[in-house]
Amino acid sequence: MKLTADAKGVFPIAPTPFFDDGAVDRASIDRMMDFYQSCGATGLTVLGQLGEAPKLDFTESLEIASQVIGKAGGMPIVVGVSAPGFASMRSLTRAVMDLGAAGVMIAPPNTLRTDDQIVTYYHQAVDAIGDDVPFVLQDYPLTFSVQMAPSVIRRIVTDLASCVMLKHEDWPGLEKISALRRFEAEGAMRHISILCGNNGLFLDYEMARGADGANTGYCFPDMLCDFVKWMGEGKTEAAHDLFDAHLPLLRYEQQPGVGLAVRKYVMMRRGILSSAAQRRPGGALTPAAKAEVDHLLTRLGKHDPRAKNLV
Amino acid sequence: MKLTADAKGVFPIAPTPFFDDGAVDRASIDRMMDFYQSCGATGLTVLGQLGEAPKLDFTESLEIASQVIGKAGGMPIVVGVSAPGFASMRSLTRAVMDLGAAGVMIAPPNTLRTDDQIVTYYHQAVDAIGDDVPFVLQDYPLTFSVQMAPSVIRRIVTDLASCVMLKHEDWPGLEKISALRRFEAEGAMRHISILCGNNGLFLDYEMARGADGANTGYCFPDMLCDFVKWMGEGKTEAAHDLFDAHLPLLRYEQQPGVGLAVRKYVMMRRGILSSAAQRRPGGALTPAAKAEVDHLLTRLGKHDPRAKNLV
Amino acid sequence: MKLTADAKGVFPIAPTPFFDDGAVDRASIDRMMDFYQSCGATGLTVLGQLGEAPKLDFTESLEIASQVIGKAGGMPIVVGVSAPGFASMRSLTRAVMDLGAAGVMIAPPNTLRTDDQIVTYYHQAVDAIGDDVPFVLQDYPLTFSVQMAPSVIRRIVTDLASCVMLKHEDWPGLEKISALRRFEAEGAMRHISILCGNNGLFLDYEMARGADGANTGYCFPDMLCDFVKWMGEGKTEAAHDLFDAHLPLLRYEQQPGVGLAVRKYVMMRRGILSSAAQRRPGGALTPAAKAEVDHLLTRLGKHDPRAKNLV
Amino acid sequence: MKLTADAKGVFPIAPTPFFDDGAVDRASIDRMMDFYQSCGATGLTVLGQLGEAPKLDFTESLEIASQVIGKAGGMPIVVGVSAPGFASMRSLTRAVMDLGAAGVMIAPPNTLRTDDQIVTYYHQAVDAIGDDVPFVLQDYPLTFSVQMAPSVIRRIVTDLASCVMLKHEDWPGLEKISALRRFEAEGAMRHISILCGNNGLFLDYEMARGADGANTGYCFPDMLCDFVKWMGEGKTEAAHDLFDAHLPLLRYEQQPGVGLAVRKYVMMRRGILSSAAQRRPGGALTPAAKAEVDHLLTRLGKHDPRAKNLV
Repeated sequence: MKLTADAKGVFPIAPTPFFDDGAVDRASIDRMMDFYQSCGATGLTVLGQLGEAPKLDFTESLEIASQVIGKAGGMPIVVGVSAPGFASMRSLTRAVMDLGAAGVMIAPPNTLRTDDQIVTYYHQAVDAIGDDVPFVLQDYPLTFSVQMAPSVIRRIVTDLASCVMLKHEDWPGLEKISALRRFEAEGAMRHISILCGNNGLFLDYEMARGADGANTGYCFPDMLCDFVKWMGEGKTEAAHDLFDAHLPLLRYEQQPGVGLAVRKYVMMRRGILSSAAQRRPGGALTPAAKAEVDHLLTRLGKHDPRAKNLV
Repeated sequence: MKLTADAKGVFPIAPTPFFDDGAVDRASIDRMMDFYQSCGATGLTVLGQLGEAPKLDFTESLEIASQVIGKAGGMPIVVGVSAPGFASMRSLTRAVMDLGAAGVMIAPPNTLRTDDQIVTYYHQAVDAIGDDVPFVLQDYPLTFSVQMAPSVIRRIVTDLASCVMLKHEDWPGLEKISALRRFEAEGAMRHISILCGNNGLFLDYEMARGADGANTGYCFPDMLCDFVKWMGEGKTEAAHDLFDAHLPLLRYEQQPGVGLAVRKYVMMRRGILSSAAQRRPGGALTPAAKAEVDHLLTRLGKHDPRAKNLV
Repeated sequence: MKLTADAKGVFPIAPTPFFDDGAVDRASIDRMMDFYQSCGATGLTVLGQLGEAPKLDFTESLEIASQVIGKAGGMPIVVGVSAPGFASMRSLTRAVMDLGAAGVMIAPPNTLRTDDQIVTYYHQAVDAIGDDVPFVLQDYPLTFSVQMAPSVIRRIVTDLASCVMLKHEDWPGLEKISALRRFEAEGAMRHISILCGNNGLFLDYEMARGADGANTGYCFPDMLCDFVKWMGEGKTEAAHDLFDAHLPLLRYEQQPGVGLAVRKYVMMRRGILSSAAQRRPGGALTPAAKAEVDHLLTRLGKHDPRAKNLV
Repeated sequence: MKLTADAKGVFPIAPTPFFDDGAVDRASIDRMMDFYQSCGATGLTVLGQLGEAPKLDFTESLEIASQVIGKAGGMPIVVGVSAPGFASMRSLTRAVMDLGAAGVMIAPPNTLRTDDQIVTYYHQAVDAIGDDVPFVLQDYPLTFSVQMAPSVIRRIVTDLASCVMLKHEDWPGLEKISALRRFEAEGAMRHISILCGNNGLFLDYEMARGADGANTGYCFPDMLCDFVKWMGEGKTEAAHDLFDAHLPLLRYEQQPGVGLAVRKYVMMRRGILSSAAQRRPGGALTPAAKAEVDHLLTRLGKHDPRAKNLV
């Protein structure tokens, strides 16, 4: 089952669980996979930037992808294959597709500047991985320093049939979704799936702009799933109420650099991960930060029972 | 009355009101000044980055500063004097101090990289403006691409007695406040005022880390004033409730690029500005964005009556 | 006399002469103007980045432009008007055009990334200064961090009739000249003048690629004039011999940051400037660096008598 | 034999030879190794940025390192191990040290800004690779966007005993060498080897500032060896004459992006490589560029017979 342009719903970005000594924690991966399925996730992305992919060597990457795919239970699994060179990107892509991945995600290298450079890069990436592999275009200027105008995304989508999804995390980004959907409405671009990242910080308005859901790692993916579902069912204000209750924590987790430490800490308190450890370089939460997250969870617990009675 | 290291409370960042044709709207400046005083603001900053300072020529800058200082009603007025060169910085500083400004704010040019380059720049700036002029150090890496480690801020504070305040808008930034206050507690740095920017996105936890208040332009400065006051009075949970009610709008306004359009639009709807116009280059809100802001205000109105019955 | 797309030859970039105390040295400006005319310069650019324009306030900028234009002796004078905002850009442009400038030069702000952002910026700049003012497009990615693809330059040239010249200083840049001249040959772009900057580091091959000459500040503009003239006369190898004799010094002067100190030092030793002083921030040459420049001049003197018997 | 702080002379940066189809050309590696030894190189660096290291997968990297080490003939071999994460860096380091490498070279990731961030990164890198592995600190701001003040290099050298060499390619960089050697003279920093990169563009003055030689890939490493040797023997002006004769070509090859195409093309014309091919992304020389390089070689041939009679 390969990823298609019809993908919808929530594809969580899975963190990579580690023990305190830095070894991969395979039991936590199993628990995490059960958890994502119980949330109502419609797919899953592994080995992304916040999956600490660059901190894994090739063998570890394959083992994690293999375990996740084995536990997918029907969810399409997207694997991050961004790499400094096309040889590594191809090796990893070929290996994970053989294992049963549904597609791959490719972020642009931070040296790209002009429109042509960006389009050319994706042409070369597709030449490297093969045009039979569906890929997700990651548009995340804050982290990658690459700015893709809507017209550039259109060129990539038009030129490369294997581009089936946009991981949208430009900031600000609402108008970009509108622009892309306008292209489609005008017949100027074929349809692709747009799932939103950026920890979901603007998901409350991105859906109405035309997004198909979320593709991000917020520590309550079950909330993201509810939100997307309720918006689809027309329960707009209830969905906003739920989202707003989570926003203080969600915003705290969205901080660059420390966000992953927050995410892992909450996932540990929720009983999913056995440790909040990151591989180096990676920040641990200070006692003050932990107290802030605990305070945020306590306040959230008044609105969402899933934030109560954590370990 | 000059700015000192004891400054506390809320110093709003004032926008510059324009008519639709780009001319400065002096009547709106008067209304805005009355409004800030009615909010309980303890000071005010004009001609900052989001005051569209770079879009004004020298004469206009002076006229605006003069009008604001004339209507200050006892509030200390800080004037942004960041400039591509020291000659312009000195000219503007000297002129506004003569008009009665309490101090100036200086952002680093985006070419600075190493610790020494940053410290040297502020030495030269003080040489240019004179060491009798109190200045605010603006630490805003997202916009200026200059990263100041806590130890660099300490060097600037230690070397330059006229540095009395930090406009703190690093992101993430909570640990930086703690680090600076720890320096003070250890006797390793003299006390300075720390007021927080970044549209107040983390003000709810910055106060407890040791910040003295806010120095930012969120369209409900009255909320910021209440929040800071209540935190000072120990009404912590009530303060958080108020903050959280505003967070969806506050986060929306914090978006780079479009944020100022949101701010001016809401200040127009609140009856403070006669127009939401910006000088070019500057974005106007699309109809979709206006509808989103209206929706955010409607939802906010359920918790804060100040968001109701807007024009 | 306004600048046109037929400009050819050498437009030196004039430094701004200062006394050691930072005051503008008007007598050196006069000497410098006489010198440029004696070199065979066909035009002149003032108030560029290396003219220390950002270190001048508005009044000083006008006085310098006025003096230079008064001493132009028939040379078209281009004035750098790059500014952080359009109000200042318009004020300076209008003032210098009234004084008799032939055109203005506009560099892009370093926040521009996408093709559309760059093109839009120049549209807005022309709206600000008026479409009756000929302008030079400065393409200098190393300093401004803005990368303009050839197709972007073509869009600007096509959209904006007042764009008459490219100050070409991309690096590497030879293929860009070829690409632009190919557009012209194919009828896909109207002709513009291309003068090369970057201290002339690749002028030896830029001419054959289609450049019309140089627009840079190397301390021997007389060499640049000879080189361009000889290439035009078919004395190719003699021209290369002359260029190569200068290359060790030229490359040394091309260093970012310290280059201007080298340039002013040599122009002082050539009797043109009374001082090598720069306004702050600006580096002075260390004794070791001075000795290196002296050594370079001594070696150059064996091939070019103009480098001999300096003061 | 491990790399020490006493390293001197010329350590060429070896390109990775490919066939036109992108496969590694092992016969050219053997020829290249013979050539470097015949030049008088005192060491060699492989798998650097311009060795196209990011375009190789792990297996290929090891095979190339193994072949080079096997043909080293007594030269210490430094292997570039820069990687987006420490797991890959450690894996490659351990493998090449087992194969007999003399040390490794580590470039900073382009996200580092403050002094502390840079120092911390190298601490973590040494934790990852082991403090028994000598490493070369690569200081190349133009490519990596990381600026290391001399005091930062001193902190790294002082904290980390396994830092034995600086690959110096800051630009401008002469004063940095002087600053570091001054630290040593004052007893404020232990001695390390400083070998210069940046294609040797300032090697003519770097030696006198205190550099120990070159660590760069210019297509005439035999010239670099002669230059360093002659400077050591006091044949200063002859050394400069030789250097200046090469400077036009050397400067042409130093262009970012296209430089490697020039280098490989000349090495092919010298009979060392069988093809000038690069893996993608990588530029090929246009016919115009080839003609320029041929012209530069012809002119060089008048001064240096090694540039004559090429294939």
